[in-house]
Amino acid sequence: MEFAEQTVAITAVKGVRAAAGRLGIKRGDALDAALFALPSPGTYAGVFTQNQFKSACVESSLDRLHAGKSVQAVLITSGNANAGTGLQGRADTEQLAVTVARELGCQADEVIVLHTGVIGVPLHAERFTPKIPALVASLASTPEAAQAAADAMRTTDTFRKTSQRQFFVADERFTVAGVAKGAGMIHPRLATMLALVVTDFALPQEALQKALQGAVRTTFNAISVDGDTSPNDSVILLSTGAKVGADSKDAANAFQMALTEVCEDLAKMIVQDGEGATKFIEVEVSGADTAEDAEKAVLAIVTSPLVKTAFFGEDFNPGRIVSAIGRSGANMQWDRVTVSMGGLDVFRDQVFVAVDSAQAQAVMKQNTIAVNVRIGDGEHACRYFTSDLTYDYVRINSEYTT
Amino acid sequence: MEFAEQTVAITAVKGVRAAAGRLGIKRGDALDAALFALPSPGTYAGVFTQNQFKSACVESSLDRLHAGKSVQAVLITSGNANAGTGLQGRADTEQLAVTVARELGCQADEVIVLHTGVIGVPLHAERFTPKIPALVASLASTPEAAQAAADAMRTTDTFRKTSQRQFFVADERFTVAGVAKGAGMIHPRLATMLALVVTDFALPQEALQKALQGAVRTTFNAISVDGDTSPNDSVILLSTGAKVGADSKDAANAFQMALTEVCEDLAKMIVQDGEGATKFIEVEVSGADTAEDAEKAVLAIVTSPLVKTAFFGEDFNPGRIVSAIGRSGANMQWDRVTVSMGGLDVFRDQVFVAVDSAQAQAVMKQNTIAVNVRIGDGEHACRYFTSDLTYDYVRINSEYTT
Repeated sequence: MEFAEQTVAITAVKGVRAAAGRLGIKRGDALDAALFALPSPGTYAGVFTQNQFKSACVESSLDRLHAGKSVQAVLITSGNANAGTGLQGRADTEQLAVTVARELGCQADEVIVLHTGVIGVPLHAERFTPKIPALVASLASTPEAAQAAADAMRTTDTFRKTSQRQFFVADERFTVAGVAKGAGMIHPRLATMLALVVTDFALPQEALQKALQGAVRTTFNAISVDGDTSPNDSVILLSTGAKVGADSKDAANAFQMALTEVCEDLAKMIVQDGEGATKFIEVEVSGADTAEDAEKAVLAIVTSPLVKTAFFGEDFNPGRIVSAIGRSGANMQWDRVTVSMGGLDVFRDQVFVAVDSAQAQAVMKQNTIAVNVRIGDGEHACRYFTSDLTYDYVRINSEYTT
Repeated sequence: MEFAEQTVAITAVKGVRAAAGRLGIKRGDALDAALFALPSPGTYAGVFTQNQFKSACVESSLDRLHAGKSVQAVLITSGNANAGTGLQGRADTEQLAVTVARELGCQADEVIVLHTGVIGVPLHAERFTPKIPALVASLASTPEAAQAAADAMRTTDTFRKTSQRQFFVADERFTVAGVAKGAGMIHPRLATMLALVVTDFALPQEALQKALQGAVRTTFNAISVDGDTSPNDSVILLSTGAKVGADSKDAANAFQMALTEVCEDLAKMIVQDGEGATKFIEVEVSGADTAEDAEKAVLAIVTSPLVKTAFFGEDFNPGRIVSAIGRSGANMQWDRVTVSMGGLDVFRDQVFVAVDSAQAQAVMKQNTIAVNVRIGDGEHACRYFTSDLTYDYVRINSEYTT
């Protein structure tokens, strides 16, 4: 799928520098390292994979988060996920942090290291640390450096993923800018999504963490390409703290809105770049008694191979959506369930609505299709973004031979 | 996948008759009706879809079950699922039952009617009832009639699905015989699996229902092609009651074993005939603290598109299996998790085991592959049968145009 190239860059936040480099984790000439640095240690918030199978880098990042550390730099390497590699893997991750910290002049636990790539293969960090000094030396606060770093994060991504928003509190201008990588969930043994968002809006760590969790809940945690999650999924939010916002609820709301919009931009780009995807599908379930019921119903739809192949085939098939809702386990008032696709009513009063076939075809031909479901009179809703299931998804995920 | 043609027939149970016919629900010359009849009303047990979206035929069959009715005949029609059709749909189902009962000389609520086919299209039973008398008149107790009826149940099935077992109590021989249809879950708007099992072993209704539920739990409820269920899924068990078994625990156990084996045969055939399937995968999770934990872990594996595409591609990829277990939500001892594929140890102590690539390839080339997982020291286990995710699955489920 196409998505307009962004001209924004994470260096829009004053003092943030970026660099791209080749450590040699990947073969050939491919860039495989992105480094982002703040002028000094900043406030750090993070949200990580819920998978019990966690990469060494997630364990390392969680330790820093739980210890309330400030963070000055984030190193992202691609080509090897450093997952399922035991204690040696953890040592490899920390070795990279130590090396970056020494060059940058900060503490090792003020450096976050994230990996993406093959699962279950030793990293051997000592082979790459000699190239770290040059990477640190090339840090620059230019948009070009930021875009090169965003490119270096890409694995199977077909386009660069960046987003930014600005907002004003009184006359002060604040910025939230982010980069992400991710295309589907796991490319053959290549693990999934990473995102880094930075801001100059100053907030205490606890408030920053809460803001990130709120933003992630409806964005990065509301996308599904194939229902799988990786041992490496990470979203990092850093604040330089350069600008102290008015200590008001309005200021906090403005920041939350900008942060959520940046996260939503990046999350949608990941779905639009989903492996083999040809359609972008937005599914909302409302009228649920609880948030859990709404999410159960949404998840049944967005993870159904039958629903997703129908969208690929542009086959107008509301029966598959209704079947998915029915088996979701969500508590609902079945006789009140209504379903619309692309604005067309397709199911109500337990009966499918006769739909003009030309209208149905017009809906299915669209690149972006909304599915709206009500399951009762409750007040809870849940929205997910997903893609279709295509030949290319099967090709990408089956043709790799180790 | 190939599966040896069965020579067995449901008419092996004495007095059971079968017939195949063309009502005209499907276009062209295709058979679209199978009728099975007992010599007189027999004991009836049934297990039905858990989907809240239920076909009219499931509602009708559930009413008879809850009322404790005896059943003399089962009519199975294909081409139209009569689901999402409201009260008119229910009237259509009952009209067919009334017509069969009149010709057979029993009560209408002693006839079960099951449908499979397109969802959400009115059935218009009055168009087909004139052909019922000829169908009833052609009932015969021959294997040929039974096999024709088993064929008439097929929709996208590529082979006929029948199974039977005999067992002895003292010197008395008993028979359990069954037929099923199903290939993947829902072919484009064609709904899923139906099975009918008959026996001459006499049991009170309550015991018969309990026996069926026990057999279904580890067989029809332990298969997954794509995680979807249909509004029509039904498993019916009828006993002619012709032979009274020794009223002993041994007799009940022998019956339960035969019944479970017949159900397992039919369930495996449905997976082997899964839409586009090229591999048959048996996944067992053991060492769980509870049955729910074991099933959660199994389900995460057998519904993972990444796991299933790797099997299709014959890509030895234990990382995807470990990732699926990790995100399953099952309570487990992560440091005790072990995984084997085709008998090869691939993961233990949180680290992937180095596996000889020739051995790994030999495992992946097999048509039937066992995945065994331990998630702790608990006593609970769960086993599922599944298939791979292939180009043909996407083709079959996307290329249909309404």
